[in-house]
Amino acid sequence: MTTVVKPSARERLLEAAATLTYRDGVGIGVEALCKAAGVSKRSMYQLFASKDELLAASLGERASAFAAGFLPGADDGRSPRERILHVFDQLEDQAGAPDFQGCRYLAAQIELKDQSHPASQVAHRVKEKLTAFFRAEAERGGARHPDLLARQLSLVFDGASARAGIGADKLTGLVMPTVTTLLEAAGMH
Amino acid sequence: MTTVVKPSARERLLEAAATLTYRDGVGIGVEALCKAAGVSKRSMYQLFASKDELLAASLGERASAFAAGFLPGADDGRSPRERILHVFDQLEDQAGAPDFQGCRYLAAQIELKDQSHPASQVAHRVKEKLTAFFRAEAERGGARHPDLLARQLSLVFDGASARAGIGADKLTGLVMPTVTTLLEAAGMH
Repeated sequence: MTTVVKPSARERLLEAAATLTYRDGVGIGVEALCKAAGVSKRSMYQLFASKDELLAASLGERASAFAAGFLPGADDGRSPRERILHVFDQLEDQAGAPDFQGCRYLAAQIELKDQSHPASQVAHRVKEKLTAFFRAEAERGGARHPDLLARQLSLVFDGASARAGIGADKLTGLVMPTVTTLLEAAGMH
Repeated sequence: MTTVVKPSARERLLEAAATLTYRDGVGIGVEALCKAAGVSKRSMYQLFASKDELLAASLGERASAFAAGFLPGADDGRSPRERILHVFDQLEDQAGAPDFQGCRYLAAQIELKDQSHPASQVAHRVKEKLTAFFRAEAERGGARHPDLLARQLSLVFDGASARAGIGADKLTGLVMPTVTTLLEAAGMH
């Protein structure tokens, strides 16, 4: 016997916020979010103090999917260099999808233009974890300047996903040569 | 005798659109734009077919300031390598300003999420000229793969300005080592 659990109003709102802000931007209206979620505005405001809080929660909700989509499993036996390359391999892969619009965490921060916004703060923290991953692997891999390399790789991640997202470039033949050049320069052969 | 020429309604609208979209995003309303410009909505629609057209025109209007702000003068006697570094020197400089929010042309495209939008198309063309500048200097400087280097430098430009714009990083000690590593790897010493 299979029990189908219907997503709750909260789950539907988080899903609608994630989908619609990624497609249309953080300016999406409360009406549109509620309509897509099939939830009344009254119910929405019972679940979330404001649209800002809904946005923040929806970005937070996606954080584990983001990590799963880009980061390798813990202790997968591969070298730090290979584990770093894995992230960019995933990025190249995801950027090839027709609905790819770049990194949702970068876009949210650019669109909100307010570092103190709750959703900006969530987005900032999610991306800091990516930089921390690069930093840890750089250190483990004996990079000359692990801090610098982690910042460079974060820059490449954001630059590459932004440019692919707006259709300014494709990542094939671009992101991998760039990352390997930076790894080599840091002594991570 | 000095004649002070009052800016026209068109000029005031272009200025308001450039300032307000940079500060608040492309979602800024027509009312706010007209109010800031001191122009009636009726007059605005006599000058521009739509808000989209006003946005596109205001981005186009800033294109020469963008080029002047980043590109070196034609034939300034410096080497291609120095001329490329000049761009990133300017970027590092501009990113230090308190109201820096990243590159307006990247932000507009990320926010609009529509490559066929007239303002996206203007923004795309402005940034293509930057890539073309990198491409020409890379070729002149004997880079191994001028196309690749131009794409890498464009990626670094966008990644760096985006990350500085959202306060994820500062560019000091980051953008110059990254660019010089890529130049060295391309054989542009």
